Amino acid sequence: MPDFTPTPADKFTFGLWTVGNTGRDPFGESTRNALTAPYIVQKLAELGAYGVNLHDNDLVPIDATPSERDRIVTEFKQALSDHGLVVPMATTNLFTDPAFKDGAFTSADARVRAFALQKTMHSMDLGAELGAKTYVFWGGREGTEVDASGKLLDALQWYREGLNYLAEYSEHQGYGYRFALEPKPNEPRGDIFLPTVGSALGFIHTLDRPELFGVNPEFAHETMAGLNFVHAVAQAIDAGKLYHIDLNDQKMSRFDQDLRFGAENLKSAFFLVKLLEDSGYDGPRHFDAHALRTEDEAGVWAFARGCMRTYLMLREKARQWSEDAEIQAALAAYRVEDEELAQLTAFSQENAQALKNRTFDRQALGRRGPGLEQLDQLTVELLLGLRGNP
Amino acid sequence: MPDFTPTPADKFTFGLWTVGNTGRDPFGESTRNALTAPYIVQKLAELGAYGVNLHDNDLVPIDATPSERDRIVTEFKQALSDHGLVVPMATTNLFTDPAFKDGAFTSADARVRAFALQKTMHSMDLGAELGAKTYVFWGGREGTEVDASGKLLDALQWYREGLNYLAEYSEHQGYGYRFALEPKPNEPRGDIFLPTVGSALGFIHTLDRPELFGVNPEFAHETMAGLNFVHAVAQAIDAGKLYHIDLNDQKMSRFDQDLRFGAENLKSAFFLVKLLEDSGYDGPRHFDAHALRTEDEAGVWAFARGCMRTYLMLREKARQWSEDAEIQAALAAYRVEDEELAQLTAFSQENAQALKNRTFDRQALGRRGPGLEQLDQLTVELLLGLRGNP
Amino acid sequence: MPDFTPTPADKFTFGLWTVGNTGRDPFGESTRNALTAPYIVQKLAELGAYGVNLHDNDLVPIDATPSERDRIVTEFKQALSDHGLVVPMATTNLFTDPAFKDGAFTSADARVRAFALQKTMHSMDLGAELGAKTYVFWGGREGTEVDASGKLLDALQWYREGLNYLAEYSEHQGYGYRFALEPKPNEPRGDIFLPTVGSALGFIHTLDRPELFGVNPEFAHETMAGLNFVHAVAQAIDAGKLYHIDLNDQKMSRFDQDLRFGAENLKSAFFLVKLLEDSGYDGPRHFDAHALRTEDEAGVWAFARGCMRTYLMLREKARQWSEDAEIQAALAAYRVEDEELAQLTAFSQENAQALKNRTFDRQALGRRGPGLEQLDQLTVELLLGLRGNP
Amino acid sequence: MPDFTPTPADKFTFGLWTVGNTGRDPFGESTRNALTAPYIVQKLAELGAYGVNLHDNDLVPIDATPSERDRIVTEFKQALSDHGLVVPMATTNLFTDPAFKDGAFTSADARVRAFALQKTMHSMDLGAELGAKTYVFWGGREGTEVDASGKLLDALQWYREGLNYLAEYSEHQGYGYRFALEPKPNEPRGDIFLPTVGSALGFIHTLDRPELFGVNPEFAHETMAGLNFVHAVAQAIDAGKLYHIDLNDQKMSRFDQDLRFGAENLKSAFFLVKLLEDSGYDGPRHFDAHALRTEDEAGVWAFARGCMRTYLMLREKARQWSEDAEIQAALAAYRVEDEELAQLTAFSQENAQALKNRTFDRQALGRRGPGLEQLDQLTVELLLGLRGNP
Repeated sequence: MPDFTPTPADKFTFGLWTVGNTGRDPFGESTRNALTAPYIVQKLAELGAYGVNLHDNDLVPIDATPSERDRIVTEFKQALSDHGLVVPMATTNLFTDPAFKDGAFTSADARVRAFALQKTMHSMDLGAELGAKTYVFWGGREGTEVDASGKLLDALQWYREGLNYLAEYSEHQGYGYRFALEPKPNEPRGDIFLPTVGSALGFIHTLDRPELFGVNPEFAHETMAGLNFVHAVAQAIDAGKLYHIDLNDQKMSRFDQDLRFGAENLKSAFFLVKLLEDSGYDGPRHFDAHALRTEDEAGVWAFARGCMRTYLMLREKARQWSEDAEIQAALAAYRVEDEELAQLTAFSQENAQALKNRTFDRQALGRRGPGLEQLDQLTVELLLGLRGNP
Repeated sequence: MPDFTPTPADKFTFGLWTVGNTGRDPFGESTRNALTAPYIVQKLAELGAYGVNLHDNDLVPIDATPSERDRIVTEFKQALSDHGLVVPMATTNLFTDPAFKDGAFTSADARVRAFALQKTMHSMDLGAELGAKTYVFWGGREGTEVDASGKLLDALQWYREGLNYLAEYSEHQGYGYRFALEPKPNEPRGDIFLPTVGSALGFIHTLDRPELFGVNPEFAHETMAGLNFVHAVAQAIDAGKLYHIDLNDQKMSRFDQDLRFGAENLKSAFFLVKLLEDSGYDGPRHFDAHALRTEDEAGVWAFARGCMRTYLMLREKARQWSEDAEIQAALAAYRVEDEELAQLTAFSQENAQALKNRTFDRQALGRRGPGLEQLDQLTVELLLGLRGNP
Repeated sequence: MPDFTPTPADKFTFGLWTVGNTGRDPFGESTRNALTAPYIVQKLAELGAYGVNLHDNDLVPIDATPSERDRIVTEFKQALSDHGLVVPMATTNLFTDPAFKDGAFTSADARVRAFALQKTMHSMDLGAELGAKTYVFWGGREGTEVDASGKLLDALQWYREGLNYLAEYSEHQGYGYRFALEPKPNEPRGDIFLPTVGSALGFIHTLDRPELFGVNPEFAHETMAGLNFVHAVAQAIDAGKLYHIDLNDQKMSRFDQDLRFGAENLKSAFFLVKLLEDSGYDGPRHFDAHALRTEDEAGVWAFARGCMRTYLMLREKARQWSEDAEIQAALAAYRVEDEELAQLTAFSQENAQALKNRTFDRQALGRRGPGLEQLDQLTVELLLGLRGNP
Repeated sequence: MPDFTPTPADKFTFGLWTVGNTGRDPFGESTRNALTAPYIVQKLAELGAYGVNLHDNDLVPIDATPSERDRIVTEFKQALSDHGLVVPMATTNLFTDPAFKDGAFTSADARVRAFALQKTMHSMDLGAELGAKTYVFWGGREGTEVDASGKLLDALQWYREGLNYLAEYSEHQGYGYRFALEPKPNEPRGDIFLPTVGSALGFIHTLDRPELFGVNPEFAHETMAGLNFVHAVAQAIDAGKLYHIDLNDQKMSRFDQDLRFGAENLKSAFFLVKLLEDSGYDGPRHFDAHALRTEDEAGVWAFARGCMRTYLMLREKARQWSEDAEIQAALAAYRVEDEELAQLTAFSQENAQALKNRTFDRQALGRRGPGLEQLDQLTVELLLGLRGNP
């Protein structure tokens, strides 16, 4: 049996804010002490991670002086260097400070919008200094509870202007960022703008430089809307827009849980790992999750280890699945090709006319059994490790 | 490795309406032919099932003459006898006929309420003739879309009167039924009365003979309300009211899917099997599900086999779990007992006063790590069959 | 037009924690300053409220010394007296402190369970001192994320023991409390025990003194589970168990929003007000909600005023509805009574036999149009204030 | 008071399948007789509708002979002409027939994909003959329950090829159709491809002729995913892609209810009407809903009348809202402009540098009260018709 111990080659990353989460929630105070960024770097390296991601204020407090900022960054870079971790992704905290309570790029207050741009430029500078190549936008406060504000169309325009501005900034600075929009349907706002992966994909095409923008889908966020996360990631891949990914877990249609990867929807997690591996996605596998509030620091590292081990176990299951003869036979039987029809379904007026005149045996098409119950059951049994000698 | 082939001792049952489902849905016509009841009996017996359950009209059409009814029932009993299957549970179809479109026991039309009683008495006679000991009430049409009807409180009273009447009938006839209320939150009605297992447990205590009534929780129904089905079943067990159970699967917060057991929430299915087995529940394990509409008859039997195999596989996993030393150690460490406090928390005025005066180290209680992330991860790895030599 | 200004006779209450909410959420810091309890009392009195409710630690910090506690309570009582407000309900904060991170009465740590009892007894003393007659239990931390803990059945037993103990305490102290269990499906725990109004109703019957226990349904909580809140309240009324009520608003199947009453589901709010008024419920109308995090203190009082005004407006609509001739005619037409059947549906063996033999015109029952679309549309038009001269 | 009687100028349309719905559901048989297409045309005209939309098989049975087809179409055109109704939109039924049980354009069976193209071309011919200018694609069967099928990426490619083919067909035939993709998250499939408005917007940009494709958002569908429908429509408008709209109503996160417009979410319906009217959308207002299954034919027309009346009432409310001085003042106060910042947020390297160096009073920005509770409350009171003389 493989031992499922991760190595940097697996490209697992965590955010400072994830393993550093102190367990505060809307109804309770922190249950764990804060951990310093260098300590997190050391621990993640020991566990076999590849990198660590951050919001500006995960590392540098919002009210730090320039010299404090420089000292903190220097120490952090030293820790990265000492332990061999990279910073592949950076992002801006545009949600904690009360200034952003009614939106950052989409605030109805022009001063807040400008401040959000300023804060993001500084944060992009920091990310670039740390070597980040992907810059994420999670617009957690971009949304509404009161649609009477009448700002929906303006807000989308302001959002666009903000993103266009920052893309220009990145290019002029030579940072070479690829930007990844991270959708979420709600929480903390009643309704967040760009609520789903699809919304973000649609919005990108209204930007000045769509080629610089892709998506950062998150398992929990899409699941909060009761949507199939694997389908959402497939659409992003199909569009060439999977720039980053946030792995965690969640029960459908409830508050944002950010559970350990694989903790809730094992089968979906399997299909996701399989899709990522099969598609050739070679970016980081980022765990945007945190240990349960019940846990102490030991629980945090058990959580982090668990995220990575489950990914590796499911990757191994995906390998077994692709080598399981019975499963592969069921897959092959599922598809029907037809050479004549392949020709007719290449459009020309003649082909269209021929296709319109052709006879189909509708009843026969409806009777055919695709074998999906059996294929799904075989998959369940493989996941349970009870498929004989796979 | 065990072979996971079911036998009648496993007490697996299916409804005639489940494997007999023809694949009709709100947007499409039937994709499979109807199967006769005797044929279903034969096939289920071949697959290792214990019994078959039915609504009155699954077996006897609503407009059958008495002699047709008798012929059909005789043939069905012969099939049961030939193949060694029993009928542990029966129920009434109070939802297909347009007469019940606005409720059966809770219709605002007194004639419909009386007709529902009549139909149920005839159906109870049929169930008793077939040997059923459990009688299920699923009030699929008992509900509203228009609360302006103003009937909420009356409807609960009518519901109660109907159930009281039928309990009297059962007792006077000597049928000895135990009645099991099956909750569902919505669909086909906008909101169904007694929407959750808890609602049914609460309602039972307003009936004349609460001791005759328990619940028939269904995995999919509780999950439609985003509730934890295992918790609901635990509450029913705690109350001594788990009289029957409907196993299937479902994604949260969407239409009623009735998926193959274990098809969606493998981990919840595991905890459910473990709870049922540990609790000593000895009633039928009834699969109230159906094959996907895409499937032909072969898919139906793959579906039925899969339901039972997955249950047996999870039962085996539960056995492994209880013998896994690391898991058992984590479980033991999770609990803290305290003899002194055990005394103080037995109520007396003196104990209460002593408890009020006692000192607790609140910070220490908050710091303790319960080890739940690790315990959960070990469970995931056991489910995946990757726990070394369990 | 009535002016919809509330008076104490309307029995509107707020919790200290509601108008005192500072706008902290999982992603952001407080946006408003804390308000002192005496100031809240003064402001609520000015707005026309009847009373104010509290958790122990809303008023007295968890680490206050006895003399600090007494000083705070004295000042608070003075404010109540000065402004003519009462404290009809009290409850315990068993969720903020890290000690309760894995449950209070249902913690796996016996010391935490004992500490929860101690804290609650002290809080009950405080409530009694302030004149509260209703004591609420919201078990926000009673639940799980990790069902592998295997404690489900034990937890229900611990919960029961805790409630039984506290009921004894109340009786021995002569406090005369009526206890109201407040259900919630999830958040902050993955799954909370007693998730719905029905669950609480069911659980009450397993307690030693069920007559002392009722429910405190909350609009947002039941709505989070996608359930119809008006139906849940009707079941509580039917069972004689509506001991208190929490009014607010919420979108279905998402995080706990605690919106201003009527802010989201105007029609449901109308039916709720109508049900409460028609049923003779004479307890407090408690708004367990808070101003949006975007708001400053002026927004807090706009929120509080809005909750009460909307209730009064909907009460006026309910009065209009009951006097609208067309609506009342539609209601009357909706119901069909039948004297002969009324006799047959009183159970006796003879009546049952007669009912079984009676003929029903099933097709005619199915054809009848109940007029519900029209009734619902008239209700919508009345709500919009566009029903001519109602 | 206006009388809210619709006229064709209001551009209200219904589908043949909506008022023609016979009340069949997954648990029950039809409760109403089918209505003929000419009769529906006559009735809708009497009620003041502008047009009627259809799937091919709403009008012409799937197994009709060419001469039957021609006779039916002739009679239908005569009825349209007699009663002055138009057919602005047509679409294909690719979901009822068992041939499409596992998808139409995305079936794994190439023959089904070809048959779907054929059927759609014939249906486009019919639509063009009837004068339709908008052609809708609702891919109700395009989806999966079993992601083990491994077809996700292929399915998106097949979907694209199908749409590209049909766009070519339309252009070559000179039909001039604008195509509108109608998203839905689930039901009848476990997960439907292109589940949200955003997904469709994103997908359009992968097509050969994106300029021919827009969206047909449906209130109920977006609401099933717990998303804010008004936000989704705003994004479609922002992208210039609102080609059609389906109005109805729905509770969040449950089965597809297709309720009367305004029946459930009055406030959202108001914001939607306001957005449509303010945006200058001049397409049909299509009600894709049906009368409750409880209703007879009279209920069907009450339903249809109610949809239109509620729209007109909300349009009148929107007018009042825009003329309400207090509301308009609150709106104006909500927005803050800043000339200096307007310059700095036009990108140039100099402006970016200046913006980075500028000082913001973060605390002041966070303290500002936007007045949203008050604005929302005023809106509620206006909706209730209790805003004095607005």
